[in-house]
Amino acid sequence: MALNPQYEDIGKGFVQQYYAIFDDPANRANVVNFYSATESFMTFEGHQIQGAPKILEKVQSLTFQKITRVITTVDSQPTFDGGVLINVLGRLQCDDDPPHAFSQVFVLKANAGTYFVAHDIFRLNIHNSA
Amino acid sequence: MALNPQYEDIGKGFVQQYYAIFDDPANRANVVNFYSATESFMTFEGHQIQGAPKILEKVQSLTFQKITRVITTVDSQPTFDGGVLINVLGRLQCDDDPPHAFSQVFVLKANAGTYFVAHDIFRLNIHNSA
Repeated sequence: MALNPQYEDIGKGFVQQYYAIFDDPANRANVVNFYSATESFMTFEGHQIQGAPKILEKVQSLTFQKITRVITTVDSQPTFDGGVLINVLGRLQCDDDPPHAFSQVFVLKANAGTYFVAHDIFRLNIHNSA
Repeated sequence: MALNPQYEDIGKGFVQQYYAIFDDPANRANVVNFYSATESFMTFEGHQIQGAPKILEKVQSLTFQKITRVITTVDSQPTFDGGVLINVLGRLQCDDDPPHAFSQVFVLKANAGTYFVAHDIFRLNIHNSA
């Protein structure tokens, strides 16, 4: 498998599609379809889990409803196994909480003509240093 | 190649080692030794380059001297080819500039008993949204 020259479009397209589902409380649980049943890693605010069933459990445990999200940057790179590495920076607001900056890293892996999320690292950008 | 169970220590160790070199102006150019001559991708503030020679050129073009850096979080995940995905969040101050939050993603790839940086995405976390 070689570098996919469409990595930029794939990255941007994925990010748009993923958050459209995640940010809609009625649809949120369907993000589980982006992950592999056994392989996918998710690190959510430092808590690491693996596999779609645990990822679904985590997503369903989130207590906020509405997310208002603004994407600041999406940086993508092609990987040598035909996948895409994506780094997203943005700001989000959950329900009436104060808005926060966040970063999320995805690694998309090619599989049978489509992609799944092999790696997902999410962090609110809260710094305890001055 | 399988998952490396030491991914957490490898990630933290790499980050410490990398920034110790990068943040020292007398030593900064030596970060080039972490990259592959042909394969490594770097996206620096949205500008994408490939291969150690161009990465060295980019690093040497940076005009600041001193970097004061505080790491907030390091999240690592093992990759199925024996490498490590790392997401770093922190704050840095270049010379007398105002401090900024930053995020940096690394993918370390195993090669002959050591690791090289296959992917590197750096961004200052500057949001133009309210």
